[in-house]
Amino acid sequence: MNITKLVAKPLTKDAFSEFGDVIEKDGAKHFPINEGAVERFHDLADIQVDSVDGGKAIVSFFQVTTPSFFPYQFNLIERHPKGSQAFIPTDDKPVVLVVGAPTDTPQAENLHAFITNGKQGFNFHTGVWHMPLISEDVGRTFVIIDRSGPGNNCDEVTLENNMLELVLA
Amino acid sequence: MNITKLVAKPLTKDAFSEFGDVIEKDGAKHFPINEGAVERFHDLADIQVDSVDGGKAIVSFFQVTTPSFFPYQFNLIERHPKGSQAFIPTDDKPVVLVVGAPTDTPQAENLHAFITNGKQGFNFHTGVWHMPLISEDVGRTFVIIDRSGPGNNCDEVTLENNMLELVLA
Repeated sequence: MNITKLVAKPLTKDAFSEFGDVIEKDGAKHFPINEGAVERFHDLADIQVDSVDGGKAIVSFFQVTTPSFFPYQFNLIERHPKGSQAFIPTDDKPVVLVVGAPTDTPQAENLHAFITNGKQGFNFHTGVWHMPLISEDVGRTFVIIDRSGPGNNCDEVTLENNMLELVLA
Repeated sequence: MNITKLVAKPLTKDAFSEFGDVIEKDGAKHFPINEGAVERFHDLADIQVDSVDGGKAIVSFFQVTTPSFFPYQFNLIERHPKGSQAFIPTDDKPVVLVVGAPTDTPQAENLHAFITNGKQGFNFHTGVWHMPLISEDVGRTFVIIDRSGPGNNCDEVTLENNMLELVLA
């Protein structure tokens, strides 16, 4: 079994642009609304939904029920072929994520790990491979925006003879 | 000037069903994902977007920049004729909201005030009148899911000779 080490690097728009959007106020277009009482940080993610057959964007919560710890070993990744998937924490704790470009033959050596700064969410574009959400903190809740509709929207792949070992920097 | 007093009542799905969705884990359909490490509270709001002309769902943050205090007087309400608008707090503080049914002639006496329990978001359905977002707490941030696209998607009405006075119970 080959072990590939993945070191989580700070999440930035530039580093993540190949995979999706960083959802954050920093650098966002913003303007006042409600007679100046509220600032709107506008249109922070490209919400992609295949709507040909009635697919639509939905909102859900993900709540962590089992803790995961670092170094964290895994070899299963997934992708959503019919839509993007956005994750926005409801707290200010960092999140560790792993992504890979939307190829049909994902390889361990093409995966990248990032860690948020506690003020960021992220949006995986359609077909981008990713590690399923993990967290050390049971009860953590994320706002999720993804697609509901007909057809398979989740592919899972187990990387054969490869284990990923995810570590913090 | 007539003053109409509005008392904020606890937000419940039943009381709010005429106006939109309460976004909460309580009572939601939920199931385990990610090999049991995460619980998904699924499809919590009807995200409505008029997509005929290319409109789509977008994600934004609203951040409170000016505090509002109770009793709070206002007489301007708004509606979004081309889509729903969802508000999800990123903290556990209650939110006070005011809504009115999607008639073309909104009246002060047909408005209703609610207060969340600190674990709820809410989604105004298309055309539902509402008070613009207020909060006592500068810096509070909400996740917003609404529509971007061509055409006017915000109507404002000032209730003539009427002032609303919003109070907590």
